[in-house]
Amino acid sequence: MHTIPSAVVLGVGPEQGLGAALARKFSSEGLHVFIGGRSKKKLESVAEGIRKRGGQSTLVITDATVEQQVCLLFEMANNNGYKLELAAYNVDSIFSAPLLETDIEQFTQLWQQNCMGGFIFGKQAISQLCKHKQGTVIYTGATASLRAKPPFTSFSAAKSGLRALVQGMAREFAPQGIHVVHVILDGVIDGERSRANFPELISSKAENGLLNLEAIADTYWSLHRQPASTWTHEMDLRPFSEAF
Amino acid sequence: MHTIPSAVVLGVGPEQGLGAALARKFSSEGLHVFIGGRSKKKLESVAEGIRKRGGQSTLVITDATVEQQVCLLFEMANNNGYKLELAAYNVDSIFSAPLLETDIEQFTQLWQQNCMGGFIFGKQAISQLCKHKQGTVIYTGATASLRAKPPFTSFSAAKSGLRALVQGMAREFAPQGIHVVHVILDGVIDGERSRANFPELISSKAENGLLNLEAIADTYWSLHRQPASTWTHEMDLRPFSEAF
Amino acid sequence: MHTIPSAVVLGVGPEQGLGAALARKFSSEGLHVFIGGRSKKKLESVAEGIRKRGGQSTLVITDATVEQQVCLLFEMANNNGYKLELAAYNVDSIFSAPLLETDIEQFTQLWQQNCMGGFIFGKQAISQLCKHKQGTVIYTGATASLRAKPPFTSFSAAKSGLRALVQGMAREFAPQGIHVVHVILDGVIDGERSRANFPELISSKAENGLLNLEAIADTYWSLHRQPASTWTHEMDLRPFSEAF
Amino acid sequence: MHTIPSAVVLGVGPEQGLGAALARKFSSEGLHVFIGGRSKKKLESVAEGIRKRGGQSTLVITDATVEQQVCLLFEMANNNGYKLELAAYNVDSIFSAPLLETDIEQFTQLWQQNCMGGFIFGKQAISQLCKHKQGTVIYTGATASLRAKPPFTSFSAAKSGLRALVQGMAREFAPQGIHVVHVILDGVIDGERSRANFPELISSKAENGLLNLEAIADTYWSLHRQPASTWTHEMDLRPFSEAF
Repeated sequence: MHTIPSAVVLGVGPEQGLGAALARKFSSEGLHVFIGGRSKKKLESVAEGIRKRGGQSTLVITDATVEQQVCLLFEMANNNGYKLELAAYNVDSIFSAPLLETDIEQFTQLWQQNCMGGFIFGKQAISQLCKHKQGTVIYTGATASLRAKPPFTSFSAAKSGLRALVQGMAREFAPQGIHVVHVILDGVIDGERSRANFPELISSKAENGLLNLEAIADTYWSLHRQPASTWTHEMDLRPFSEAF
Repeated sequence: MHTIPSAVVLGVGPEQGLGAALARKFSSEGLHVFIGGRSKKKLESVAEGIRKRGGQSTLVITDATVEQQVCLLFEMANNNGYKLELAAYNVDSIFSAPLLETDIEQFTQLWQQNCMGGFIFGKQAISQLCKHKQGTVIYTGATASLRAKPPFTSFSAAKSGLRALVQGMAREFAPQGIHVVHVILDGVIDGERSRANFPELISSKAENGLLNLEAIADTYWSLHRQPASTWTHEMDLRPFSEAF
Repeated sequence: MHTIPSAVVLGVGPEQGLGAALARKFSSEGLHVFIGGRSKKKLESVAEGIRKRGGQSTLVITDATVEQQVCLLFEMANNNGYKLELAAYNVDSIFSAPLLETDIEQFTQLWQQNCMGGFIFGKQAISQLCKHKQGTVIYTGATASLRAKPPFTSFSAAKSGLRALVQGMAREFAPQGIHVVHVILDGVIDGERSRANFPELISSKAENGLLNLEAIADTYWSLHRQPASTWTHEMDLRPFSEAF
Repeated sequence: MHTIPSAVVLGVGPEQGLGAALARKFSSEGLHVFIGGRSKKKLESVAEGIRKRGGQSTLVITDATVEQQVCLLFEMANNNGYKLELAAYNVDSIFSAPLLETDIEQFTQLWQQNCMGGFIFGKQAISQLCKHKQGTVIYTGATASLRAKPPFTSFSAAKSGLRALVQGMAREFAPQGIHVVHVILDGVIDGERSRANFPELISSKAENGLLNLEAIADTYWSLHRQPASTWTHEMDLRPFSEAF
């Protein structure tokens, strides 16, 4: 029986968002992409876009913080003729507030979406990839994982946890042929969410001053294509004009 | 009315443990110490030891992950004639396991005790200390906050989150006169818990090969005594024989 | 007049070495490559290999620690119809010894080749690239730039200096359109020098256990091709089987 | 014969400078202090101050970049009845300039004074301390060792090299009983040099906004007094009001 190579992208939202861009890229390279996210409407829109480009995808409404849902997503992607080879965790909920104005629910939710979800995702992805002893898991990280700056303290605590998780996973599973990568996005993404939330910040940027969705997606794909002799486990991406 | 300077130590367990050693040290320096922990019996034993040395303490049964309890602990320590000047978060639950054998409850509990508890503690400590615009908050951290090594990946994710939290707090509150410190303990503590859990590891160590409780406590006290002109925000402590 | 795009690679030695692999890659992408190194014989061999592949190169005998020579190399590469767009510093002299058995000449030479040479190279590269307000400068770094482990202390001091230099350059010149990158090679390169110096280490490695020359070169080229919206300033490369 | 415990401080300049403060502190604790620096006049003034306080010192005109001179300094401090137990490297030449305006002499001199001098110092200090299998070596470091920010790129390259050197030394010699520490000073020192060079910066600072000489010296002494069970290898010191 013919086997169809597949990918999972979790954290797919608007069409002009990173999750969607990753899904489009992976499908354009011939993978059947299982796209997970909470909004059926957004997933349908992204899937339709992939279909129009001649690609293949399956949408799976998925809350990244619910283990059974993520487990199902991966089981679909690595069964019935599909063979998983690439998984990208792109859930990202940013938040900023003075510490004394941050409540425990906000602190916890940030961690659940940015770090605990990454743990669930990693376990399920690796459980499937280990069956073939190869494959790639890529996490979208943030500069906040390297330095905690108020008022992003809680966000930084969550992203630092994610970075450590990914680093430990990379060390544990590299010898088994699984490539786990932490990509540090530093800057504002040129996408729908940023345009809606920070219109003035967006318009203040120079040309090429925003992270380009397709360029990020190309990078993720290149990471997946690295030979086992020469793997990257962490890299940063930022616009030329971004102070760092 | 006479004001009595006070300290809070959360994470007080056996007499030969770091929480108890911190409480003894702070009380020996003249502070009334509010000791928090989950075991009434252990707290009573520590309080009795402090009393015998001529010190003062109040025990408050406290689960570090329950905000109301921590809030109460701090309200007691900064009212009715007590003026809080020092708080130490010493809750530490270590854990190691391969990632695929770690379940979400274990991953979550590690984070709750090591990181979320630190957030609750920090908010309550700073809320009280801000009233006087001075004081010190010290966190017991771990080397795992710097590097994630399997099978300590989940522990590292929790401790990395804590480190980021503390760093952000230090940056946010230093200008307001609050000194927040992350102490990285690297090595095995010469205490009851280690002796019970790792007897062979303990006996394999050279003389001075274990972190000494009193020496750690002296260091925490020195940090509290630093003048505002010359503060430490992060330091490590390890036995001379510890590889790092 | 027609302008020919050019690259500089400094630190070109044996054909089965990284400098040569970079030169071959860049020439295969249509750049005229100016190759610098100390051995005329080796440069000639590399140049001949490029010629046979249909590429173009010019060899310039260059000691990376002599500013005038490096200056000349770059002047040749950005004049007379050549337009420099890419420069790679690949000088690398590794060394290990107990500190008390390291003399000041060894310590100094390590720094001169790994760090001071990088400074000279960066100044000359950027002086030329600034004329066009674009271009890429890539440095071959090492894991030792992140952690100093005996007996590699002196090597680490040199490589840490290089990393800081590159980071500062990246920050200073990114807003001017110059992309400066630090690539951390972690592992043994599958090249002539390693095979000659560590034959047993080489033969102990698993398949894909050595850094592949062509894969590294492909990565450098990808870095050069990144759009200004989405630049990497640091990334690591290591074989899947390398402990880190 | 009675043995007199001794210390070496290299990088002693004006009386209101860190080198002098360290020498005063160490002598007040009962050590005979060998003070090294390039200005005989300044050394005499510091020595006179120590004498007036009832302490003991010997001045040795020393260029930290000349190995024979440093060797002599340490031989004096560990012979003829003196037993070396503590050595502090306090040479610090800061510099800032755009990269293209930095010449190779400046880049080299920065490295020689901040890093190569530290290597010479470490070798000589450890050679003497190894005779007793105990003792402390403390280096004055800078935040620039952690992050390179223009226009401090060259300074950062030098200080990053020093940090790696110290870290490697700490790892190599801790098992032999030698305690090597890197202290990161972050902020402006409240001393003569700062007052002369940055008068406006100084006067803009809040109360306690400058690093206090005596507080730094107390910290160095505390590091020396740490028991072998509980050593610090790196710590930072900064005024409460310093952004970091």
